[in-house]
Amino acid sequence: MQKRVKNVLFIMCDQLRADHLSCFGHPTLKTPNIDGLAARGMIFDRAYVQSPVCGPSRMSYYTGRYVHSHGASWNFVPLKAGEMTIGDHLRPLGVRSVLVGKTHMRADLAGMSRLGIDPASQVGMRIAECGFDSYERDDGIHPYSGHDPDPAYNAYLREQGFDGDNPWETWANSTVEDDGTIRSGWFLKYSNRPARVPDEHSETPYITRRAMDFIRDAGDQPWCLHLSYIKPHWPYIVPEPYASMYGPEDALPVVRSDAERQDPHPVYAAMMDHRVSRTFSRDGVRDAVMPGYMGLIKQIDDQLGVLFAFLEAQGLMDSTMIVFTSDHGDYLGDHWMGEKDLFHEPVIRAPLIIYDPDDRADATRGTRCDALVEAVDLAPTFIDVYGGEPVPHAVDGCSLRPLLFGLRPAAWREHVVCEYDFAFQDSRIALAAKPRDAWMRMISDGRWKYVLFERYRPMLFDLAADPNEFTDLGASPEPEHAAARTRLHEALFRWARQPRQRVTIADGTIESTEIQPRISEGGILIGYWDEADLAQARQSFKPRFASTNPLVKPTLDRLTHPQGVKHDD
Amino acid sequence: MQKRVKNVLFIMCDQLRADHLSCFGHPTLKTPNIDGLAARGMIFDRAYVQSPVCGPSRMSYYTGRYVHSHGASWNFVPLKAGEMTIGDHLRPLGVRSVLVGKTHMRADLAGMSRLGIDPASQVGMRIAECGFDSYERDDGIHPYSGHDPDPAYNAYLREQGFDGDNPWETWANSTVEDDGTIRSGWFLKYSNRPARVPDEHSETPYITRRAMDFIRDAGDQPWCLHLSYIKPHWPYIVPEPYASMYGPEDALPVVRSDAERQDPHPVYAAMMDHRVSRTFSRDGVRDAVMPGYMGLIKQIDDQLGVLFAFLEAQGLMDSTMIVFTSDHGDYLGDHWMGEKDLFHEPVIRAPLIIYDPDDRADATRGTRCDALVEAVDLAPTFIDVYGGEPVPHAVDGCSLRPLLFGLRPAAWREHVVCEYDFAFQDSRIALAAKPRDAWMRMISDGRWKYVLFERYRPMLFDLAADPNEFTDLGASPEPEHAAARTRLHEALFRWARQPRQRVTIADGTIESTEIQPRISEGGILIGYWDEADLAQARQSFKPRFASTNPLVKPTLDRLTHPQGVKHDD
Repeated sequence: MQKRVKNVLFIMCDQLRADHLSCFGHPTLKTPNIDGLAARGMIFDRAYVQSPVCGPSRMSYYTGRYVHSHGASWNFVPLKAGEMTIGDHLRPLGVRSVLVGKTHMRADLAGMSRLGIDPASQVGMRIAECGFDSYERDDGIHPYSGHDPDPAYNAYLREQGFDGDNPWETWANSTVEDDGTIRSGWFLKYSNRPARVPDEHSETPYITRRAMDFIRDAGDQPWCLHLSYIKPHWPYIVPEPYASMYGPEDALPVVRSDAERQDPHPVYAAMMDHRVSRTFSRDGVRDAVMPGYMGLIKQIDDQLGVLFAFLEAQGLMDSTMIVFTSDHGDYLGDHWMGEKDLFHEPVIRAPLIIYDPDDRADATRGTRCDALVEAVDLAPTFIDVYGGEPVPHAVDGCSLRPLLFGLRPAAWREHVVCEYDFAFQDSRIALAAKPRDAWMRMISDGRWKYVLFERYRPMLFDLAADPNEFTDLGASPEPEHAAARTRLHEALFRWARQPRQRVTIADGTIESTEIQPRISEGGILIGYWDEADLAQARQSFKPRFASTNPLVKPTLDRLTHPQGVKHDD
Repeated sequence: MQKRVKNVLFIMCDQLRADHLSCFGHPTLKTPNIDGLAARGMIFDRAYVQSPVCGPSRMSYYTGRYVHSHGASWNFVPLKAGEMTIGDHLRPLGVRSVLVGKTHMRADLAGMSRLGIDPASQVGMRIAECGFDSYERDDGIHPYSGHDPDPAYNAYLREQGFDGDNPWETWANSTVEDDGTIRSGWFLKYSNRPARVPDEHSETPYITRRAMDFIRDAGDQPWCLHLSYIKPHWPYIVPEPYASMYGPEDALPVVRSDAERQDPHPVYAAMMDHRVSRTFSRDGVRDAVMPGYMGLIKQIDDQLGVLFAFLEAQGLMDSTMIVFTSDHGDYLGDHWMGEKDLFHEPVIRAPLIIYDPDDRADATRGTRCDALVEAVDLAPTFIDVYGGEPVPHAVDGCSLRPLLFGLRPAAWREHVVCEYDFAFQDSRIALAAKPRDAWMRMISDGRWKYVLFERYRPMLFDLAADPNEFTDLGASPEPEHAAARTRLHEALFRWARQPRQRVTIADGTIESTEIQPRISEGGILIGYWDEADLAQARQSFKPRFASTNPLVKPTLDRLTHPQGVKHDD
């Protein structure tokens, strides 16, 4: 039976490292539901996000464009009104794009005001939600994120009896000691203790139910549902039974080397000096955090089991493409870092899995793909799924469907790129850098990873010889290293100068039209010496314009009259 | 007496070469009114446009952004809705930005539709007119440009008795032979004959009067008037007395060398094969065209005399900054080329003159400036004039006022850049290039001019040794030439990777805020081990958020309580 995709379920976790899924090799953290999705779909082993922090990475997912293209380079930078998103691309194809969960979008209110767009209008609300229709937005870190002072999840918690100004924090993200003392999950020290709410009322199950609510109510119109979990993002705290599932001994060993702290690159040094990096480098911190982080992932896997069973029960599994990914990873103490401010693999590698029910994908089920893929590839994949024409003038990525169908394209990309605008970080201040110089860009061919800074020497890693990325070859005099730097430097230049802002005219429009003859056919006559010159050229005209502009044909007839036109007055 | 600018008169010609003004050295074409403006202001000897064709060059003038930034890379490519223009920048400063004449803008109707903007609304009309309020738009080449099927100038001509469907063409841009035969000015052969309308009813005086109409009616609100002449752009035909003022012997000698046709760069070869290039390379064509082209310029100069006298009479000369420039030049047969599809000096050098009535500019009146300046500098200059803060996150250019005030900034730009998307040209088809590869970019440090293509070797010229640009050193093995190519290649990469799309957050906003402490002050607590850790850090907090979010201070108070909080239920 021919199977075709009708809906897309686009699942994103926040701050989930690829190596924390059992299908990506984690030895103790078992994620059978995600592994099961992978068994029916394809694992992308070399998928990369476009930026190591939430906002810019997500805007790249939602627009299919590099950060260099869309410009929303950090968490507080609004995606500018007018940037096209998945929703904008899919709407003309009859698809409803819907959000349940987090986007980290900050609305471009100034841009809307300039364009006369009411933020309360449908267009305004879409602009504010990255082009999605918001079924329920939940960005976590309530209410401090500034998005919603009293989100629905807080109201839900109060309905369950979890009172207070901010039950998200004081219940769902706090723990209580045996003596009754409440401790906030903001503090890493308490990450290995259970949250104050039972599992069913914590944020991941709540959001999963909201997604099922949407799917149940969605009706017959095709949808693209962005189910976007805030977890396992901090606060790293999870209810029982997950809080007690893992101990420090279950964690992957920390990946760091004393050599990394000897004469480090100045930007890396400044990043290692961030408070969060210093904290994660202290003894005992990882031991407290890892059980919470792992428990949150296990909880997500269990909830995805619930969700996938629901989809089966609804009869949607054969018509719903399921994408599972994350917006970036988490250092968790690796490389003497916390959070996500550089380009090591634990941070920029995405745990990308795609299940495509289309029977043309049968040949690749359960396989792994080592092609270099990027977050920007999802938007064009969805456009492809719904039958839209490719829009390379408007998105930087490429549809992954040829890979899903086992057709390795002849000319697949040779590099991935990740960018970070660290203007907003303490390291920029510590380095006394100007905001415009506080950019770094990573390009990798899969073996070599090159990082270009504006005012500092580059970094270089050889992922084959040094998979842990302990040895920065950015200043190495070895000819092989110098050659790799030169090669990737030039590749990054090719990338940087790609045209990406000519979004109002499609490449196909240009290719399908011989513009210059058409200009002449339309009566704009450039470079003709006389009537005979034009008459001769006109032999080859395809006068398409004549039908739409009644002046053109008579004008061309007159102007190709060899004797000219007599004075008429 | 202290003099300050109240209004800006931003005059643009179309296709006017810098070397066709007497203040730029033309020996026979005398432009005393423009020269007089230069005597009161400053001549910029090394001013460059951002693209050699109308549309992209103008969009750079109007946005202050490179073509790489704004994306409207050719004449039919709409500037995308949302791109900020001079009008958008000046409106909050209380300035009315008004158009009289040409812009070559194509409205982004698809973008407006997506954003729910009615093209007939004020915002919609501004988007369609590059951010200007249109007093009268006149793009020439009526009615074929597609902008307005029956423009006001045609109605005006009919009122004067010049009848017909399109009097712009059949009267203002046609000539009549002695036997009564009408000949179209589209044909280069007739460029040295007088137009059928008398001087006063031709397009340049008409548009000048429309500008004076606006100024007369403008009232007290400060204005920025873009007076944008279609001439001396083709059709190269002018009424008497200008049609008879110049003969072929008055023209500058053609600048071309047989060496240029021996083994030329493949893209240059394809450009030389354009019909207009072949036509201008034929004997006799320049002899016919140059009298018309020069007459059109002389007519503009005379009209500027009328306009400047009017400003004097209105008492506006001491409060009106006057900018005179062009959107690009014209090969006119130089380098075996017609039109404007490459980067030789006759095409990309702008005849830029600025008269600034401010008394701080007194020191530079009548002087010439050899700093490298660009079309993108005008928008930030106007923002500066009206007291706006610099917006380097939104414009690529720099205010020219420091130069006008004689304060040579310490760190002025070291390179100019010009770009061309030749996807729309016959040469792209002849070369079988994909549209995305049909870009070329020029970078010059004033001496060396380097042109980078996507699929071909670069070009290089040494403007010091070879001011006529006859010798392409793009493949020269000379170490000096190789070094210049390497240096400018790298400079172009630095240029290409500059951040230009983060337009929603100003650099100053980032610089004025310690973002990370502010995040903690706002209750988002990243990387704290325990209460004591936060309490210590809190000593240095400047709790600005506490006043706007009533949850924050109590939350921080609670979280820094060393004994934690007791269970409250």
